[in-house]
Amino acid sequence: MLQTRTKQMDIGLIGTGPMGSGMARTLLRAGHKVTVYNRTRQKAEALAADGATLADSAAAAAGCGIVITMLANDDAVENTVFGADGVLAGLTRGGIHISGSTISVDLSKRLTEAHQGLGQGFVAAPVLGRPPAAESGSLFVMAGGETAAIERVKPVLTDLGQKLFLVGDQPFQANLMKLCCNFLIFSTIEQLAEVFAIGAKGGLEKETIFSVLTESFFTAPVHKNYGRIIVDGAYDPPGAKLGLGAKDNRLFLEAGAELAVPLPFASILRDRFLASEAKGDAERDFCVIAERAAEDAGL
Amino acid sequence: MLQTRTKQMDIGLIGTGPMGSGMARTLLRAGHKVTVYNRTRQKAEALAADGATLADSAAAAAGCGIVITMLANDDAVENTVFGADGVLAGLTRGGIHISGSTISVDLSKRLTEAHQGLGQGFVAAPVLGRPPAAESGSLFVMAGGETAAIERVKPVLTDLGQKLFLVGDQPFQANLMKLCCNFLIFSTIEQLAEVFAIGAKGGLEKETIFSVLTESFFTAPVHKNYGRIIVDGAYDPPGAKLGLGAKDNRLFLEAGAELAVPLPFASILRDRFLASEAKGDAERDFCVIAERAAEDAGL
Amino acid sequence: MLQTRTKQMDIGLIGTGPMGSGMARTLLRAGHKVTVYNRTRQKAEALAADGATLADSAAAAAGCGIVITMLANDDAVENTVFGADGVLAGLTRGGIHISGSTISVDLSKRLTEAHQGLGQGFVAAPVLGRPPAAESGSLFVMAGGETAAIERVKPVLTDLGQKLFLVGDQPFQANLMKLCCNFLIFSTIEQLAEVFAIGAKGGLEKETIFSVLTESFFTAPVHKNYGRIIVDGAYDPPGAKLGLGAKDNRLFLEAGAELAVPLPFASILRDRFLASEAKGDAERDFCVIAERAAEDAGL
Amino acid sequence: MLQTRTKQMDIGLIGTGPMGSGMARTLLRAGHKVTVYNRTRQKAEALAADGATLADSAAAAAGCGIVITMLANDDAVENTVFGADGVLAGLTRGGIHISGSTISVDLSKRLTEAHQGLGQGFVAAPVLGRPPAAESGSLFVMAGGETAAIERVKPVLTDLGQKLFLVGDQPFQANLMKLCCNFLIFSTIEQLAEVFAIGAKGGLEKETIFSVLTESFFTAPVHKNYGRIIVDGAYDPPGAKLGLGAKDNRLFLEAGAELAVPLPFASILRDRFLASEAKGDAERDFCVIAERAAEDAGL
Repeated sequence: MLQTRTKQMDIGLIGTGPMGSGMARTLLRAGHKVTVYNRTRQKAEALAADGATLADSAAAAAGCGIVITMLANDDAVENTVFGADGVLAGLTRGGIHISGSTISVDLSKRLTEAHQGLGQGFVAAPVLGRPPAAESGSLFVMAGGETAAIERVKPVLTDLGQKLFLVGDQPFQANLMKLCCNFLIFSTIEQLAEVFAIGAKGGLEKETIFSVLTESFFTAPVHKNYGRIIVDGAYDPPGAKLGLGAKDNRLFLEAGAELAVPLPFASILRDRFLASEAKGDAERDFCVIAERAAEDAGL
Repeated sequence: MLQTRTKQMDIGLIGTGPMGSGMARTLLRAGHKVTVYNRTRQKAEALAADGATLADSAAAAAGCGIVITMLANDDAVENTVFGADGVLAGLTRGGIHISGSTISVDLSKRLTEAHQGLGQGFVAAPVLGRPPAAESGSLFVMAGGETAAIERVKPVLTDLGQKLFLVGDQPFQANLMKLCCNFLIFSTIEQLAEVFAIGAKGGLEKETIFSVLTESFFTAPVHKNYGRIIVDGAYDPPGAKLGLGAKDNRLFLEAGAELAVPLPFASILRDRFLASEAKGDAERDFCVIAERAAEDAGL
Repeated sequence: MLQTRTKQMDIGLIGTGPMGSGMARTLLRAGHKVTVYNRTRQKAEALAADGATLADSAAAAAGCGIVITMLANDDAVENTVFGADGVLAGLTRGGIHISGSTISVDLSKRLTEAHQGLGQGFVAAPVLGRPPAAESGSLFVMAGGETAAIERVKPVLTDLGQKLFLVGDQPFQANLMKLCCNFLIFSTIEQLAEVFAIGAKGGLEKETIFSVLTESFFTAPVHKNYGRIIVDGAYDPPGAKLGLGAKDNRLFLEAGAELAVPLPFASILRDRFLASEAKGDAERDFCVIAERAAEDAGL
Repeated sequence: MLQTRTKQMDIGLIGTGPMGSGMARTLLRAGHKVTVYNRTRQKAEALAADGATLADSAAAAAGCGIVITMLANDDAVENTVFGADGVLAGLTRGGIHISGSTISVDLSKRLTEAHQGLGQGFVAAPVLGRPPAAESGSLFVMAGGETAAIERVKPVLTDLGQKLFLVGDQPFQANLMKLCCNFLIFSTIEQLAEVFAIGAKGGLEKETIFSVLTESFFTAPVHKNYGRIIVDGAYDPPGAKLGLGAKDNRLFLEAGAELAVPLPFASILRDRFLASEAKGDAERDFCVIAERAAEDAGL
């Protein structure tokens, strides 16, 4: 988190998986009052010891007036928001729903409309970073939504991460931005995979390639983190499973279809994800798509 | 350059274009004796004022015992080395040819063999960086060749750049490594181009996208330098023309063919380069390939 | 149609667009009793003059015991079958629903299950051919479903086309087979488009290329019909609009995703369809995707 | 052959592999005088029994005034034409060289220029068909060259095949047309391979798919011949090895590079050929590239 906030806020948080739990603890440390809800109640209980209050339904958590959802996919968000005892039902007129999940552009638009229709605010604020960054408050947060709504929840967004980007006044724009970031991660894996494949057949050591790249022009976290995973073949146990990457790439392609944008690199990634699934890598880390280039080269 | 060398060496340098001239001045500043040769003599003359000696032929420059070639492409290197009054003819037994150009794996192998046959050493030492980096001695140098040869010219290689990578004991490995780096540059341009295209159609500002990326996970020089060019549409005047990029991508694909490595991303780049040529962008910077994704999206 | 049937059957037909109307008239000519329904009643009225009876709802048409749906897309089929006064509601136990539309593998599976749950039969019988073939009874029909169900409606399927293929005992297999056929059409267009593009830049006449191909190894209807359209640039008025082709290609890719099958050619077609939409060709014939290869070549 | 010719001509034929031998016998049957030359003399000797005369050099065969070359690749043609005792040296002023081989656009242009410079004629006349078609005179011949030259050798070209196509007045245009035909063969294999792969995972029998396709819209020799090979997995022994297909696809891509034409399907084929080589299929029929789509689907 960037600084200690002086103003305590009352925040609901729905979805206490590794990401959501980390965010809850970060908000508690920042001095906020946090009420959590998880469909499987047990997963939320550990947070009570950290100072969180447990709610019995999504609607109850939404009763806080500001509610964050941090869920696995479109379906989970849809059920939690539109379902019985859901966010829409529990949020007061003037309340704000912050969606931190990586969801589709299409669902983001439907959420915007639904909340608007009830006089509620909607801010999409997907994040970049894995669970440890959620725990330490060092996520990157990219927010989209109407200025007034953003302003009201800015203290929360600021406390959640090391950096807050305001990307546009339509919530879906933040979701699109997030899908772009994930696409850049996946396509960097493929870039590196092709390089490691041709390098191997030319007799270059993986570590040598990794050094040359990450100590010259290719020094970004995306190069170092994912390059390291490929060099080590560290696909088990998975940090994030194949299906999760496949889903985000599919959402990116769907956004391309909706906006009429050909995306040739993303199409190649689609085939990498599908081939990985077909070859039995569903339970491994999604970075395993890097194996496909090696395999095609007979390695 | 990393440090001032104490041992003065006698070095020939062939090819005094923007890159070669910068390298010559860097070596002069480091205290070496530098003899330059350029096919078009005028281009070499300016270096006399900086302390270089002018040679009348490639063979004469090679007479220094250590000779660097820094030329535009395979053809130029081939003519300069194998031609009449060329490097092969001028280099003494035990002399060493350092090839700094970005050339094909195939030519690198033929050069290795030819020099070996005459008892001469061959080191491939392509560089990463543009002319200003050559001038200031801040290139990245990746060297391949037999250990003994590398050791003898290490002071030169060290003085040329900010960092020296030893990538393998076969010279072609350094050329392959360099082609990999260039492929990563080209494919990063395509990555970003797809992101800027879908972003534009979703109403995101280019500067916003650039900030989010380069201030989060995508902070490498390759992201910042090339992203900035795309955001600004700074393709004229060209830093390096379309054909130069097209050539390097072609060499990468040819290396893939020789080593039997499918390279789907590089194939897409091939089509981007060809479409750019077909549409009249031959005289612009090669980064103009980023326009193709935008165009396909109707922008 | 293959032969005059002796056994008159009582058939409902839902969806009287160009395809459905042609099929209705073909069945009437074969001596069947045909009851038609269309959401926009006017479009069905012309068939009364040909001897068809008009129904007031999909359920009423389904009351015939055998009902054919011939609709534009998944949504239309879903509404007509599952909706109020729909096919599921109107079909008697033991009745059979023949789905002639090009729909998704996923919807086909859901229809199979829904009908089964009510003791109704479901046969998928998508067709190959355009409206004139539907009128003249010269469609190709590919049917999937349980043997018993297929046997019962075989006279109908046989009367509809010049040839009936039994592709498998699961209805979705017929839908998959149909998507494969459409993919072969689209990818043949791209094949030809690349050939015409490079031919044009090499100074070859389109008619010359067309002759060489269609009089040697490439003599199939798919070559002749679509090759002719490309040679003539006959994209207006459309025989079938861009969106129709785009939809079928999307369904093919979705089937690939569900079955974990990478489909690189189909991904390229995806980009061709999207680029065509982005460039304003939505109201033209889907064969206009052939323009993209030409455009990329600067033509 | 189309008809019996009355006018006997004096023809040299260089390259008596399976294709060239078949062509020689077809010309002999048509009543021509045929002088053959092969680098490995034994391979030509069998033709003596059929009435051919044996020459001792390419130059000697070219002495006939009309000489056909039917060789494996660019290198063989280049050596045979430009080498010592080659075609250029042996052909009289006014003589005509007919190149039947599948060669590059680039070499065709160089041959055109070289022959022109010596007052000789050059006609490119590549053929479509395998050895049995060469034997029976049922090849498809596509010829390019100046009208006067074509007219003079028309009887020969007509006798060689079942059909003669005149494609343009520049020889390279015939070579380009031939590369286009081969590209259509390769890309049809990939089309079918993707269909068989998704079909298999959907439980469709290969024979069923083959029937539906080849008895409906996909009835061309290219569908039936290559579809049958894939269905039977008949890759051994090879009719034509992997490298032969890979070479022709490479020449097609090179023509695309020279003419600035992006060719996305051909790029995918490139990767299929390379992956096949990498996986040990070099000695199998080139149709084995169809295995790649199956493999990527985990089959």
